[in-house]
Amino acid sequence: MGNSFGHIFKLTSYGESHGVAIGGIIEGCPAGLHIEIDAIQKELDRRKPGQSKITTARKEDDQVVFHSGIFEGKTTGTPIGFYIANKDQRSTDYSEIKKSYRPSHADFVYDSKYGFRDYRGGGRSSARETACRVVAGAIAKQILYLKSIQIAAFVKGVGKITVPDEIAFENIHKAENNLVRCPDETAAKQMESAILEASQKGDSLGGVVQCVISGLNPGLGEPVFDKFSAVLAHAMMSINAVKGFEIGSGFQGCTEYGSEQNDHFGMEEGKVVTATNNSGGIQGGITNGAEVRCNVAFKPVATISKEQSTVSTEGDEVKLAAKGRHDPCVVPRAIPIVESMAALVTLDFLLRSKTNRIDQL
Amino acid sequence: MGNSFGHIFKLTSYGESHGVAIGGIIEGCPAGLHIEIDAIQKELDRRKPGQSKITTARKEDDQVVFHSGIFEGKTTGTPIGFYIANKDQRSTDYSEIKKSYRPSHADFVYDSKYGFRDYRGGGRSSARETACRVVAGAIAKQILYLKSIQIAAFVKGVGKITVPDEIAFENIHKAENNLVRCPDETAAKQMESAILEASQKGDSLGGVVQCVISGLNPGLGEPVFDKFSAVLAHAMMSINAVKGFEIGSGFQGCTEYGSEQNDHFGMEEGKVVTATNNSGGIQGGITNGAEVRCNVAFKPVATISKEQSTVSTEGDEVKLAAKGRHDPCVVPRAIPIVESMAALVTLDFLLRSKTNRIDQL
Amino acid sequence: MGNSFGHIFKLTSYGESHGVAIGGIIEGCPAGLHIEIDAIQKELDRRKPGQSKITTARKEDDQVVFHSGIFEGKTTGTPIGFYIANKDQRSTDYSEIKKSYRPSHADFVYDSKYGFRDYRGGGRSSARETACRVVAGAIAKQILYLKSIQIAAFVKGVGKITVPDEIAFENIHKAENNLVRCPDETAAKQMESAILEASQKGDSLGGVVQCVISGLNPGLGEPVFDKFSAVLAHAMMSINAVKGFEIGSGFQGCTEYGSEQNDHFGMEEGKVVTATNNSGGIQGGITNGAEVRCNVAFKPVATISKEQSTVSTEGDEVKLAAKGRHDPCVVPRAIPIVESMAALVTLDFLLRSKTNRIDQL
Amino acid sequence: MGNSFGHIFKLTSYGESHGVAIGGIIEGCPAGLHIEIDAIQKELDRRKPGQSKITTARKEDDQVVFHSGIFEGKTTGTPIGFYIANKDQRSTDYSEIKKSYRPSHADFVYDSKYGFRDYRGGGRSSARETACRVVAGAIAKQILYLKSIQIAAFVKGVGKITVPDEIAFENIHKAENNLVRCPDETAAKQMESAILEASQKGDSLGGVVQCVISGLNPGLGEPVFDKFSAVLAHAMMSINAVKGFEIGSGFQGCTEYGSEQNDHFGMEEGKVVTATNNSGGIQGGITNGAEVRCNVAFKPVATISKEQSTVSTEGDEVKLAAKGRHDPCVVPRAIPIVESMAALVTLDFLLRSKTNRIDQL
Repeated sequence: MGNSFGHIFKLTSYGESHGVAIGGIIEGCPAGLHIEIDAIQKELDRRKPGQSKITTARKEDDQVVFHSGIFEGKTTGTPIGFYIANKDQRSTDYSEIKKSYRPSHADFVYDSKYGFRDYRGGGRSSARETACRVVAGAIAKQILYLKSIQIAAFVKGVGKITVPDEIAFENIHKAENNLVRCPDETAAKQMESAILEASQKGDSLGGVVQCVISGLNPGLGEPVFDKFSAVLAHAMMSINAVKGFEIGSGFQGCTEYGSEQNDHFGMEEGKVVTATNNSGGIQGGITNGAEVRCNVAFKPVATISKEQSTVSTEGDEVKLAAKGRHDPCVVPRAIPIVESMAALVTLDFLLRSKTNRIDQL
Repeated sequence: MGNSFGHIFKLTSYGESHGVAIGGIIEGCPAGLHIEIDAIQKELDRRKPGQSKITTARKEDDQVVFHSGIFEGKTTGTPIGFYIANKDQRSTDYSEIKKSYRPSHADFVYDSKYGFRDYRGGGRSSARETACRVVAGAIAKQILYLKSIQIAAFVKGVGKITVPDEIAFENIHKAENNLVRCPDETAAKQMESAILEASQKGDSLGGVVQCVISGLNPGLGEPVFDKFSAVLAHAMMSINAVKGFEIGSGFQGCTEYGSEQNDHFGMEEGKVVTATNNSGGIQGGITNGAEVRCNVAFKPVATISKEQSTVSTEGDEVKLAAKGRHDPCVVPRAIPIVESMAALVTLDFLLRSKTNRIDQL
Repeated sequence: MGNSFGHIFKLTSYGESHGVAIGGIIEGCPAGLHIEIDAIQKELDRRKPGQSKITTARKEDDQVVFHSGIFEGKTTGTPIGFYIANKDQRSTDYSEIKKSYRPSHADFVYDSKYGFRDYRGGGRSSARETACRVVAGAIAKQILYLKSIQIAAFVKGVGKITVPDEIAFENIHKAENNLVRCPDETAAKQMESAILEASQKGDSLGGVVQCVISGLNPGLGEPVFDKFSAVLAHAMMSINAVKGFEIGSGFQGCTEYGSEQNDHFGMEEGKVVTATNNSGGIQGGITNGAEVRCNVAFKPVATISKEQSTVSTEGDEVKLAAKGRHDPCVVPRAIPIVESMAALVTLDFLLRSKTNRIDQL
Repeated sequence: MGNSFGHIFKLTSYGESHGVAIGGIIEGCPAGLHIEIDAIQKELDRRKPGQSKITTARKEDDQVVFHSGIFEGKTTGTPIGFYIANKDQRSTDYSEIKKSYRPSHADFVYDSKYGFRDYRGGGRSSARETACRVVAGAIAKQILYLKSIQIAAFVKGVGKITVPDEIAFENIHKAENNLVRCPDETAAKQMESAILEASQKGDSLGGVVQCVISGLNPGLGEPVFDKFSAVLAHAMMSINAVKGFEIGSGFQGCTEYGSEQNDHFGMEEGKVVTATNNSGGIQGGITNGAEVRCNVAFKPVATISKEQSTVSTEGDEVKLAAKGRHDPCVVPRAIPIVESMAALVTLDFLLRSKTNRIDQL
């Protein structure tokens, strides 16, 4: 329980950051899909550490190996088993992290929950686990693409710097032009500076990722507990370091009047459309055909080189300062993860919708 | 699919706003609990319409009837079936809503999804459904109380008015002293004025509810997809009109440095505690023993008496202005719903944690 | 957990035999089905007690009441809530059953599991609960019928009397011509005599029900744990008093040679068919297009008027002899229950199959 | 969907017989269990091909490799990922099986379901998949053992030869003394001869496995759909080639009178016990503390060297005769598989029972 996501298209994952490998099983992938392995690897490369000067210097060569579910280049309809080896298991000195609880990390809560923990790095709580999500998400994207559904995310904010204007879907791809993955070049430069500055101070920064799902038909999402927005929130909040989620105009929209926020319906090329999209493409928990647009807030990375006070597993007060390689800001690397979770949510709802109506069986 | 919430303690609900009744089944309630029916009814009364001048004038006498699972005042361990009759089904004129799509309501998306809809009010998309959550939540609260876990929510913001300071858990109960359910009396008065003003203009307001869970032990929540914060987000975002969720310092905290946001560990009475609580009581998706504190953003009510443009089911452009009774601001009535969802999440994780360790079996 | 059956078309039930009511929620029923309420009631009447001289004299007027999910005669796609009142709750004397454990009943195990029990009749363990399955099964049958899938069951054995020959699908309906629901008139008469004789001796009899699903396409059932036959076994074994299940040639076929049991493929009207059907329509857990044929064994009713020794809840040895109304043989009344469970299984697999292939999305 | 078994202790498996590897993920294993890897490997060896002259000559060196969930010899509470490489993938000639449907195999139904199939051997429908069940079952057994629960199975029948008397639990281990795994030496010799004879004729035999679970407390199993017997039936019927399941006195008991079958309660050492055990340890779907005893019927192996008629994928009538290595009788090798499924069912119910009562939370 807790290692699976999805009802029909379902990922179950396993693995600790410094164990032998991480991996997973993808169930419910329809048979007959021509899998593009390169496209999956490309997404993993977008997530992997060591991409640039603003990410950790740790290098992981995240090569996915498939064990099953693909035959002669096509999915067979049976579960897709895969793994990614943990190559970078060098003989690190874990004595400090073994004996003390890093602030705002999961060391203490894992000890509390399970009685002991795999103290080599974050173990199961490490963000390394998200690589499995990217594998599944990359496959989901390939299926969605056949249905003209596309997903794109970008960095909207880093620290106190925020992209001022809405980025049109067709411009999001420009995020790939810079290290921060922000399509607004001016903001991107400021963000890069802010990250480098934080890094030099031995500190870290958080930020906000915006994700857009385009090409959806109306009708996806399930009343009442599995609203599209509720499951999307679940998906995003399950990513390491995420502390907030909002759909459409979000928290800001909730300070305005109903007359300002309501999205009026109109007709366009014979289709019902909305004049505005404060709803973020979702009404009553179900897609209305407009773009789904959401924001995901990432806290600043907990690992910093500045010295911090904490307690040891014995209950003594100690000081800790992270050594070695770590990201000053995880937000740029989170883009493929956010996109992957969005893809898992969207595809699963698409499959769930196939039995909504008696006349479509 | 989509009508159930929870893994062990599980609510499955049914019902449309203007059908015969709404109701549900609660599974996984441990046997032997002395059920306080009055306490359940009291929570329903906190939610029901017609409570005060700032809520809708519609009166619903939400009396819950239990069909099973309780014998001689105690839960039997078998499913608890219950329903609440829809008494207020007067011969309303549905001709307008039948033929046109209310802006930012679910009329259009239900038609898109299912091919037709129950056009009497919101049908399944109506917030009336949340009464079932309150029944289940009230029972969950009774069990949590036996474990010294308490849950309290209050209105933190209405429109542009926000409570300036953090409200301590022991002061939240003061929210019940005023109509808006805000424990800060000054803010409460401003909010009340704002709501009445919006109402007079035929408009509506949204707001923010803060919910606090107190008395938790460390160790609740499941890696990796069912982080406590992720399931809590799912729960809250599944409530009608919710557009945003954040845990601890949330979106604001994500603009700061790691050194400002990290919660340092210390010892207090032999227990590991944190000096600050920016994490909102959750680290790595698992409770750390501190208060869980989260914010839930509600959009302004979509139903307003101001005239709005929209389209008919035939695709013609039409004008709509809501008649009759409706809430200008739903946030005060949302308090027991938010608390109920928090209770469902917390109890379910508590039950799930019972098999975490081999030495506790 | 344990009160739901099905993945997409899902029944969750509640209720004790002598509580206020039993009922349930049906989820995943596709929208737009014209529900025939009469057909549902007719199935309930086939199950209800007091039908004939060979069933219990207890009369229950099992009237189903729907609360939701149906609008203007059609399913809306939202959950169908329903209940059946327990009208026959006369002031029975429960003192004996309250204080002692009836042999081969669930009194003792419920006390062991939950610490106490609803001692009025069987409580949750009563077969009365199966009425809810019949409601859901009747709806499932209506959907299957639109897909040319039909389900029929009959009494194949009572005590030591067995129908000697295979009954063709088109002759099963003859079972409704006699009280025992056996299409072989000679066997039926013998069975009836045997039941009456057992009844006069204060004893009871068991028997075997055969169920046939006709009109299935190849391809239903899911590898590897949810084989069609495995889920069908689960469904049937979950019916009260069932002690055995077999598919196709079953236990007998397992004593023969592979060369005798293998079903050779051939062509018929352009379709792949099997010359024999020892597989019972299922190979590798998936339907092959032939009739699914299975046997379900019911133990003799545990309630008998003969005196039996047992123990009291205090641990004293006592004697018990059932008074009042009870079935000497439950098998004839089990027919609609078996058919209902078969319908639930079949429809759920049909719906699950809708996302099997990428080219059918 | 369909690749997982269990609610709390849950196995999800993947893999085709001739792909790179098979494997799985075990969730819900409580933290802190000292895993005995050797004991797991020993169970795999009991299942593997090439053990003796009455099994297939195919040799598979089934070495399980663990990727996660175990640290310093103990389970961490996080998912246990594992795989077993498919070493025996020699360049076999699949041209015949690729082009035609083997009688009573899954070739045709997989083509029907998915549009094409992995034609190298049985693919996902191969019994090789059951090795993953044995890995999970072996771990489950280790936990059950700590709770004094033991599981043992043996061959009760092969072809028309059946063990005449009931085998006491403490004598089942004698089954390991002979190749057929039957504790009755006389019957074992006859079975061995029968298997060799069938093998020489190019034919195959089926049989019956009896499985006994000993040391259970009363109270395991969940009303109403997840009766212990129902889930056990599901588990067993999901094993390849299984066609029948019965609990306790089963089909035979259903031909007798209630007065003959009822298990009278009595007291023994202060505990409620039954004088007989026709119920097979389960009443009302819940364990009563007596041994759970069930029979599982396996059909004769479908692969035989005798020539059989069938059709090609093009619809032409063709002849087939299996070449090479195959089991004439799979029943002896099924013992560890049956035990494993029983262990998965029992442990999962044990874990589910931990939240049954409010006074045990």
